[in-house]
Amino acid sequence: MSHNTFGQLFRVTTWGESHGPALGCVVDGCPPGIPLEAAEIQQWLDLRKPGTSRFVTQRREPDEVRILSGVFGDARTSGQVTTGAPISLMIDNLDQRSRDYSDIATAFRPGHADYPYFAKYGVRDYRGGGRSSARETAARVAAGAIARKVLGEGVRIRAALVQLGKLKIDPGRWDWAETRNNPFWAPDAEAAARWESYLDELRKDLTSVGAVVEVHAEGVPAGWGAQLYGKLDAELAAALMSINAAKGVEIGEGFASAELTGQQNADEMRMGEDGPLFLSNHAGGVLGGISTGQTVIAKVAFKPTSSIPTPRRSLNETGEEIEVRTTGRHDPCVAIRAAPVVEAMTACVLADAFLRHRAQTGGGAFVPGQDGRR
Amino acid sequence: MSHNTFGQLFRVTTWGESHGPALGCVVDGCPPGIPLEAAEIQQWLDLRKPGTSRFVTQRREPDEVRILSGVFGDARTSGQVTTGAPISLMIDNLDQRSRDYSDIATAFRPGHADYPYFAKYGVRDYRGGGRSSARETAARVAAGAIARKVLGEGVRIRAALVQLGKLKIDPGRWDWAETRNNPFWAPDAEAAARWESYLDELRKDLTSVGAVVEVHAEGVPAGWGAQLYGKLDAELAAALMSINAAKGVEIGEGFASAELTGQQNADEMRMGEDGPLFLSNHAGGVLGGISTGQTVIAKVAFKPTSSIPTPRRSLNETGEEIEVRTTGRHDPCVAIRAAPVVEAMTACVLADAFLRHRAQTGGGAFVPGQDGRR
Amino acid sequence: MSHNTFGQLFRVTTWGESHGPALGCVVDGCPPGIPLEAAEIQQWLDLRKPGTSRFVTQRREPDEVRILSGVFGDARTSGQVTTGAPISLMIDNLDQRSRDYSDIATAFRPGHADYPYFAKYGVRDYRGGGRSSARETAARVAAGAIARKVLGEGVRIRAALVQLGKLKIDPGRWDWAETRNNPFWAPDAEAAARWESYLDELRKDLTSVGAVVEVHAEGVPAGWGAQLYGKLDAELAAALMSINAAKGVEIGEGFASAELTGQQNADEMRMGEDGPLFLSNHAGGVLGGISTGQTVIAKVAFKPTSSIPTPRRSLNETGEEIEVRTTGRHDPCVAIRAAPVVEAMTACVLADAFLRHRAQTGGGAFVPGQDGRR
Amino acid sequence: MSHNTFGQLFRVTTWGESHGPALGCVVDGCPPGIPLEAAEIQQWLDLRKPGTSRFVTQRREPDEVRILSGVFGDARTSGQVTTGAPISLMIDNLDQRSRDYSDIATAFRPGHADYPYFAKYGVRDYRGGGRSSARETAARVAAGAIARKVLGEGVRIRAALVQLGKLKIDPGRWDWAETRNNPFWAPDAEAAARWESYLDELRKDLTSVGAVVEVHAEGVPAGWGAQLYGKLDAELAAALMSINAAKGVEIGEGFASAELTGQQNADEMRMGEDGPLFLSNHAGGVLGGISTGQTVIAKVAFKPTSSIPTPRRSLNETGEEIEVRTTGRHDPCVAIRAAPVVEAMTACVLADAFLRHRAQTGGGAFVPGQDGRR
Repeated sequence: MSHNTFGQLFRVTTWGESHGPALGCVVDGCPPGIPLEAAEIQQWLDLRKPGTSRFVTQRREPDEVRILSGVFGDARTSGQVTTGAPISLMIDNLDQRSRDYSDIATAFRPGHADYPYFAKYGVRDYRGGGRSSARETAARVAAGAIARKVLGEGVRIRAALVQLGKLKIDPGRWDWAETRNNPFWAPDAEAAARWESYLDELRKDLTSVGAVVEVHAEGVPAGWGAQLYGKLDAELAAALMSINAAKGVEIGEGFASAELTGQQNADEMRMGEDGPLFLSNHAGGVLGGISTGQTVIAKVAFKPTSSIPTPRRSLNETGEEIEVRTTGRHDPCVAIRAAPVVEAMTACVLADAFLRHRAQTGGGAFVPGQDGRR
Repeated sequence: MSHNTFGQLFRVTTWGESHGPALGCVVDGCPPGIPLEAAEIQQWLDLRKPGTSRFVTQRREPDEVRILSGVFGDARTSGQVTTGAPISLMIDNLDQRSRDYSDIATAFRPGHADYPYFAKYGVRDYRGGGRSSARETAARVAAGAIARKVLGEGVRIRAALVQLGKLKIDPGRWDWAETRNNPFWAPDAEAAARWESYLDELRKDLTSVGAVVEVHAEGVPAGWGAQLYGKLDAELAAALMSINAAKGVEIGEGFASAELTGQQNADEMRMGEDGPLFLSNHAGGVLGGISTGQTVIAKVAFKPTSSIPTPRRSLNETGEEIEVRTTGRHDPCVAIRAAPVVEAMTACVLADAFLRHRAQTGGGAFVPGQDGRR
Repeated sequence: MSHNTFGQLFRVTTWGESHGPALGCVVDGCPPGIPLEAAEIQQWLDLRKPGTSRFVTQRREPDEVRILSGVFGDARTSGQVTTGAPISLMIDNLDQRSRDYSDIATAFRPGHADYPYFAKYGVRDYRGGGRSSARETAARVAAGAIARKVLGEGVRIRAALVQLGKLKIDPGRWDWAETRNNPFWAPDAEAAARWESYLDELRKDLTSVGAVVEVHAEGVPAGWGAQLYGKLDAELAAALMSINAAKGVEIGEGFASAELTGQQNADEMRMGEDGPLFLSNHAGGVLGGISTGQTVIAKVAFKPTSSIPTPRRSLNETGEEIEVRTTGRHDPCVAIRAAPVVEAMTACVLADAFLRHRAQTGGGAFVPGQDGRR
Repeated sequence: MSHNTFGQLFRVTTWGESHGPALGCVVDGCPPGIPLEAAEIQQWLDLRKPGTSRFVTQRREPDEVRILSGVFGDARTSGQVTTGAPISLMIDNLDQRSRDYSDIATAFRPGHADYPYFAKYGVRDYRGGGRSSARETAARVAAGAIARKVLGEGVRIRAALVQLGKLKIDPGRWDWAETRNNPFWAPDAEAAARWESYLDELRKDLTSVGAVVEVHAEGVPAGWGAQLYGKLDAELAAALMSINAAKGVEIGEGFASAELTGQQNADEMRMGEDGPLFLSNHAGGVLGGISTGQTVIAKVAFKPTSSIPTPRRSLNETGEEIEVRTTGRHDPCVAIRAAPVVEAMTACVLADAFLRHRAQTGGGAFVPGQDGRR
């Protein structure tokens, strides 16, 4: 991970500011011959885009993606396929409301990147947060859509909001289908209902709240990942922690594993009909940095939206003590729109791990009791 | 992070297996002219080395490090200094007890990397866990000692064990000096006493337990880190999650931030005598991926030692269902010796961030109310 | 160098095909606070753009560049400056003549990338050479313009065509100003005149020819570059060899040094008023992979344009033996427009070396007889 | 290429100084399951080692390599195989003659890295050239031996000295077997005889001379390499230019291609029994940065040994004007021992290209007239 690029072989470079003319990314290293239409990317962007419920920012952006390179189709191909060349994706910014930014041009909004960006760079595009705006995550979602195509249908990546403030979902009511039925990506309809009234209350209190997103990647075969510093869980941790407002990452049991005993934690194995079976998944599908064939499970903690209408004490660039109060279009909980971003980052990390695994080993995995790679 | 290398400019490549002739690392990209003697590295290795208390593995390894390259001294230098060339460090393995490994040669020990290593590589050095042994962390600690020298005395990195199983320290009794007075790196003497009897009990129960380590890096100036995928917290997350047995990483409030409101979470600022002051540090010293000048704080959750004397169900390479029971020299809680490793990884990430910051900006930071970089 | 990205800290990722909607690049890692207007990039693109003389392709492309991100200006900045965020540059393709490509859709044009692209990727955008078209070099030139700004006015990078076919310039008549007075970038007016009639002759003979470009980077201080695999000359070699049609790279004396004796080759030193002086520059400004403070000099050999109107024997994708004859808009000598590309690649490599040097050492260099870095 | 590491997936990190205790390398990313004994590496080191003829340095080094990690063997494997873990190789320095270095401790030997190392680092290990000594190439040769195993027997890499000073071999007498019959790696016995007397003469004249090495990699399938900045020829250029004393690199016709016409240069194709056939190989086996299936051919120009017994004018670290005259153990032509190094670097670049190709495409290549990858 270097500046604005991540991935070793499946490489994503994003660019763009909240209020610049456009944002986008270049996805390099994609295998050739994969069917790819803009609409396939668009479907994921539509799940992230703003303005879809009263609980998210009302900024109006169609987030329409264009593929500028790296695909080709003619009479011989059925539709458009990747060519192995870099895929350049662009999304225009349309709703960069022209307004007076003099109130925030020099202010450091508490909880935002304003102060460290000033300290590091001296100059910054303060309009809408500039480069540090969560708007950048649209590029991640677009790249993730391509990663899903690389992984194919065998790998299924789904995320859900499992905790909003102190209100957790009931795991017993987990229903993936439900995540599309409420504006929160909640897998539990009852939780969604409670969150709705809770968020209304928060808004009245002129505040915001944090949340936790959980992601499951099913179908990841055993063997993906690498040794000590290219570990699958280490790369997932980096990718997920790089999402705006993320403050914690867990793999499998995560912090709960600190309270487990060795007996409780280590997942036992038996032989199933189709190969090894684990009797539990405390590991979250990764041991020694390498996938076990179980579902890869991670959680990401998001801090509350820092932009709130309640005045907070701060400084400006000239060192004056000021009060900052953020009005305007902001999500009361940034994590509400984070689920598709978490999915996308997971997809990109897995696509990269898949290619790296194929590089070092030729692909496939050894199966107990069978000869050679399968 | 690629295979067994991490860092972009301060680059650490480790090598070696638990029961091979030696282990070590190559530290490349180190600035020249830094005084560096083997003893300075040794002091940190001595804090990690096995056999120092009855709560850790009794394997007897002096862990004596040799510097094979990258330093030079003559009459004109006072002692030995780095030359800017790669620094090769080597530690001999002395206590690789020659024994019969036929019991684990083909078995997959639950909770260990055995199965995914088999699946991925087909062949593995099973003696003592081979490459996936925590013994590799000696190389991390050695590299971290050099990273500390790069950072200089202005940056102070200290870690402590703050939770063992369900038993947490009392933050009100936090005393860094105490971490060297007990075998657990506990900053709270009372907690250490409780942990001692708790671990004795665990041992009787033939089990193990997980723990949480917290690290503080004081003196990190504002401005270190990079944009979206080179974020300081993302790189810390990767580095800490890459430590053996790590399952979770938090920056600042971490998962607790999910329960905070915007008012509670965003750290307010006032002007101090020496520059900006934050009135709290929920952020853990990082905003937008860039250091704020506050103490950088992270936590790492470690799972319980997977090697336990209680039999667990598993498979072997031929697909047979077996029971695995680990006897021999094992830490009842791997995290007991993890604190120096967490410190070392933090030091390496910070040294890399320091060099990258200096590259892009020339070093220093803008200070509110003052002109130019300081 | 990875796929379509080069540079370690000053990183350039290019994208786009000859006949796609646009091409461009993302320049990441640029220091902040550098004034940068599109016009400053445009001036270099105008030197490379097609259609400027009868000796180059008549494709009509204004090659107008847009800066989509990474710069910002307001009342406090004088004009627009870099912010340290990724700079996305885009150039629309306007003259992708819509025509029937059925003649080349499946043919492998001799000397082109058609066959290996087919072998590797299976599918390829054959329109105008697709990704392998020299049109991609526009993105390099744009990135190079930013690299020049990073290097500042102290470093001056100029290239010239020094050989066309067998016709070499007379070094005694070398005049940099002359390179802008003829369509060949010849530093020797007489050579330019001869080349003009020679190229007319070649065109009548329905053929093309190769050429050699020489680049000088003046003002590079001693100390840039790195040890064995990050050597300044090794990175220059890669960057220059990556230009379309390049087949050879020399540093300083290059292949001629094979014929020199030790006395002749080693540049002697004396003390000048402003520091060390070399009495010759056979080394081309690089020793041990690190700049010496002398002018960095490299040469690049370009093969003749492969697209010629004379029929050549080849195959197509179905394995049929065919004849290929290229009509249409092609440069009779690709190297005629290569000089600005060679300059740009040199600038990018030097900008990267500058940042890496500053990272590892803090910048500056030791001077004989003086204490500390200057 | 970063500092002292090269390769993206097959990664080689070298370390060590001429007169330190040892030198070595870590080879990371090697596929698992490849038989690898120290003797297989040793055979290549023996071809490079000093003291084997009167035309090379008389330093006595057995150059015995030890494999410290990354391999494993037990009753089930036939011998030792790679495990996919980093392979650490070490070669002890035995003949670091303890002598008085005060004459060169502060002097800048002309043509050497002394001055730029001083300028960049301030401090340097001047004993025998320290890090910039050609002794480092032993580590390259060791890594190359592993790369050959990764490539397998299908790829054959051989280098020869084709020019010594102005004396070239006669290509018509090219006989690979001959390269092992003379101390120069000459493929032409008559040339070797002439070189012998020429070198004796040079020695009397207290001087040295440069040379050219040519390398052929046969059996490289079509499709290896990557797009614009990961081109196979660009990476070869960097790898070969990174060898000590290298000043020029050519692919295929190289600089001669500048003098060819389009008809002469572009290699025509016909259909052979086993697939496409090229009727010539001016391209040197690479088009568009990707291998064509023909033999990959490159040439490297080496400058004359800079260490000569004839006094040359120079400076020292205090800025005094001095004369430098090098006595002691030095090759009169460094390139004499360069052939195995050129082979090794070519092998490493190809091994990396092979793994990267397998990553992006799954391996294999499309063949005209056949469906799917073969």
